[in-house]
Amino acid sequence: MILYPYKMSEIQNIDLAITGAHILTIDETMKEYKQGSIYIAGNRIKWMGPDTEQPENFVVREKIDASGKIIMPVFFNGHNHASMSFLRGLGNDLSLDKWLNDFIWPAEKVMINPDTVYLGTMLSVIEMIRSGSGIFSDMYFFEDQVARVCEETGMRGIIGEAIFDFPSPSRATPQESMQFTRELHSRFQGHSLINVSVAVHAPYTCSPDLIRQAGELAKELDISANIHLAETTTEIDMIAGLYGKSPVQHLYDLNFLSERTVAHHSVYLSPEDRQLIKDSGTSVVTLPNSNMKLGSGACAVGELIKLGINVALGTDGPASNNHQSLLREMQQLARLERVVNYDPTSISAQELIRIATINGARAYGLDKDLGSLECGKKADFQIINPDQPHWYPRYDPYNSIAYAMQSNDVESVIIDGKIVMRNRVLVNIDEKRISKELKKKAGMLF
Amino acid sequence: MILYPYKMSEIQNIDLAITGAHILTIDETMKEYKQGSIYIAGNRIKWMGPDTEQPENFVVREKIDASGKIIMPVFFNGHNHASMSFLRGLGNDLSLDKWLNDFIWPAEKVMINPDTVYLGTMLSVIEMIRSGSGIFSDMYFFEDQVARVCEETGMRGIIGEAIFDFPSPSRATPQESMQFTRELHSRFQGHSLINVSVAVHAPYTCSPDLIRQAGELAKELDISANIHLAETTTEIDMIAGLYGKSPVQHLYDLNFLSERTVAHHSVYLSPEDRQLIKDSGTSVVTLPNSNMKLGSGACAVGELIKLGINVALGTDGPASNNHQSLLREMQQLARLERVVNYDPTSISAQELIRIATINGARAYGLDKDLGSLECGKKADFQIINPDQPHWYPRYDPYNSIAYAMQSNDVESVIIDGKIVMRNRVLVNIDEKRISKELKKKAGMLF
Repeated sequence: MILYPYKMSEIQNIDLAITGAHILTIDETMKEYKQGSIYIAGNRIKWMGPDTEQPENFVVREKIDASGKIIMPVFFNGHNHASMSFLRGLGNDLSLDKWLNDFIWPAEKVMINPDTVYLGTMLSVIEMIRSGSGIFSDMYFFEDQVARVCEETGMRGIIGEAIFDFPSPSRATPQESMQFTRELHSRFQGHSLINVSVAVHAPYTCSPDLIRQAGELAKELDISANIHLAETTTEIDMIAGLYGKSPVQHLYDLNFLSERTVAHHSVYLSPEDRQLIKDSGTSVVTLPNSNMKLGSGACAVGELIKLGINVALGTDGPASNNHQSLLREMQQLARLERVVNYDPTSISAQELIRIATINGARAYGLDKDLGSLECGKKADFQIINPDQPHWYPRYDPYNSIAYAMQSNDVESVIIDGKIVMRNRVLVNIDEKRISKELKKKAGMLF
Repeated sequence: MILYPYKMSEIQNIDLAITGAHILTIDETMKEYKQGSIYIAGNRIKWMGPDTEQPENFVVREKIDASGKIIMPVFFNGHNHASMSFLRGLGNDLSLDKWLNDFIWPAEKVMINPDTVYLGTMLSVIEMIRSGSGIFSDMYFFEDQVARVCEETGMRGIIGEAIFDFPSPSRATPQESMQFTRELHSRFQGHSLINVSVAVHAPYTCSPDLIRQAGELAKELDISANIHLAETTTEIDMIAGLYGKSPVQHLYDLNFLSERTVAHHSVYLSPEDRQLIKDSGTSVVTLPNSNMKLGSGACAVGELIKLGINVALGTDGPASNNHQSLLREMQQLARLERVVNYDPTSISAQELIRIATINGARAYGLDKDLGSLECGKKADFQIINPDQPHWYPRYDPYNSIAYAMQSNDVESVIIDGKIVMRNRVLVNIDEKRISKELKKKAGMLF
C-alpha cells in the first residue's frame, strides 16, 4: 500500500505557505499571480505560482489563507535617522538654523545615549513595520543599539555609524567612528538581518581626507557607503566657497562615487553633476517629505530616471518628516514630481513602486536577495487588505497602492521568512512597555 | 429630606457628556482644556470646561470617558465631487486632456445616474467620516442623491448642483440646473444637516450671462456660491483670449465675487487678482493634492493669508486626488507651502488646523454654528486616540496633528450631536452592503 506518492528525497519541508493572494512580484517583468501562493522554507522563497499549480510534494508547517489580499515586497526605507523619533515634533515651524541650533542640537547633547537610541529606534521600527517597511538604512550614533532593535524585533537594518569631523555623541573622533564601523562589520558579517554601511555625514561636515578614507574603507570591507549630498543651496554655496566646485564634483574627485555609493537628497544637481552620478554608478535616495518640510526643494527624480540613474526612496529621520511610512513617502513623491514638472504623466504608479522596493535593494547592493519576490530570494513581503472604502473601485492595483492605500491597510509583514506583524499585532514587540518607557524618558508635554 | 439640591427648573437634560479629554476648541483664542468635558443637549454644545468644574444640575443620558483622547472640531472638506469615487484610479498617470477625453468623460456618460451618484457619494462619505471629516461641500449632478446620503449617514453636506452651458447628466439645460438648485433650496431649508450652495462650474464652461444669473440666484436665496477659479494656465489663456482679462477680473466684473463666494483652486492669481479677492470678501478653497496630482501648480496660500483672505481646504473629487482624507490634505498643504516658498516657517501648525476647520465654516457662512467648539455651537467634533507610535513623543498637539497623525487615529465622530462613528464603527452605514453593491456596479478589474 502506497501511503504517499513521493520518495523521501522528493519531499520538501515548507515552514510557511500563503495561498489565494494577488501577488505583485515587482520582478523585472512585473509578473503577477492573480490567485497565487508563496511557499517559504527557512528565510527564502521556495516556490511561487498560481494556486492551481501548487506542488504536492511539500509538507507544510503553517498555511495562511490570504484570499482577497495583496502580497508585495516590503517597502525599502533607503535613509533614516530612526532614533530621532525621540525629537519628533520638537520645535516645528522654524527655520532650519533656529530648529537645529535652539532645539535639535541642544536636545541631542542631553538626550542621545545608548538607551534613548534604543528606545527611539524601537519606536520608529514599530511605525515602519506597521506601514509595510521591512528594511531601513540608518545613519546615527550608537548604531549597535540599532542592530539590537533589529535583532529583537525581526526588522532588517542597514546600520551606519555617522562619521564627521567633530566628536559625536558616541565617539570622540572621526577615526573612532571609522574604527567602530569596522567593528560593526566584523560583528555582523553574515548576519541574516543586519548589514553595515559606511555612513559619511556630508561634504560640509567632513574634511576631504576623511571622505577619501571613508570611501576606501567601504571598498576594503566591500560594503556600501552613504552620504547626504546636495541637499540645500547653503551646502552648494559652502562647498563652492571651500573647494571651488559642486559637492558632487568634490566627491567624485575624492574617488568617493561608485556603484557602492548612495547619495541622499541630491536636490541641487547641475547637468554635469547628474552625468557624474550616472557615470560613477552612484544611486540616489530621494526624501520628498523632508525636503518639503524643511523647505529645501525638490529632487528632479524623473530626470535622473531618464538618465538611467537608480533612484530609491527614504523617509529621513522622524524629526524632519514627521512620519516613518515609506508608503506615504511614495505617495508624496508621486505628487511632488507631478507638480514640480507641471506634468501628470511624469511618473507612473509602477515606477513609484519600484522606487519604493527593488531600487532600494539595488542601491545598497542587496538586490540579489531583496526587493522583489522571486524563487530563491529572501522571503520579505507584506500582506495588504484592499477591502477598504478608500480602495474602491479597484481598477489597477499599482495605482491603488501608489495613490490611495493607507499605512493601516498593511495586515501582516514577513521578514526573513518570519512573521513579524500578524493581523496588525507586532509579534516580537511589547508596544505597551515601549510607550511606557518613552513617556518616562521623553519630556511629553501633552 | 432633600433628595436633590436643585429645583426642577434648574435641571438640564444632557444627551451626551464626554469627559477627561484634551479639548482643542479652535476658537478665536485657541483655548484648550487639558482635562475637559463637553456636554451636548440636542445637536448643540451646552457646556464645556475643565473636568473639575462640571456642573451638577445636569441629568446625563450617556457618558463617555475619553481620558487620554483628544477632542477637536471635525474637519471641513471645502470642495468635493464625492461620487467620483466611482472613477477613482481610472486612467491615472495621463495628461489632463487624455484623462478627461479618453477616460473620465466617456465613463461619466455611461456611469453617472442617480444610483451611481448615491453609491459613489456613500463610499466617499464613509472615507470622510473615517478620517475625521464631518462636513463636505459637493459640486456634481443629481445632488438630491448626495442629500439622501447625508440624511442616511448623519454626515453634514453642502450640496451644489453643477451649473454650466452644456447639458449635464442630470439636467438638459443650465436653466434647469438653476431651477433644480431653487428646488433643493426650498426642500432643505432649515434642515439640520443639509445646506445648498449655487455651484457654478468655471469661467470657461459658463457664459458671462449664466455666471451673472447664478450670482444673482445666490443673493436672492441668501446662500453661498462656489466656483472653480484660476486652476490652470490653460484656463488663464482661454479667458484672456475670450474676454481680454483674468478669470478673477472677469468674475468681478460680472458681480459674482462677494462675501458669499467661494473660489476653488486659485492657483494662478496676479497681485491685482488677489486684491479683488480680498476686497470682495471672497474665500479661497485650496486643493493641494489635486493640484499636485494633475500637475497644475501651487496656490500661494501664505500670501493670501497675509493679505487677510480666508483660506479653507478641500480634497477635490476622488478621481483627481485619490483619497478623501482632509487630514492628509492638511498635512500635504503644510509640505507644499514650505517647499514652494523654500521656507519651513511659511505656515504654522495652528494656522493649518484653522484652515482645515473654522476657515471652511467661515467660507460658507456657517461659522456661527460650525468650525470650532464653543457653547451654543453645533456639536460637531472628533475624538482622536493619540496613543500610537507615530505620535510619540508628544511635544505639541497641533504639531502632532498637522504632521504625524494618521486618518485611522480618529476613533469616533460626532455630527449634529449624534455619534456617527463609534470606535471606528460607522453607526448608520452597512459597509458590507455598500462594497457589495459597488463590486456589482463598477467594473472592478482586480
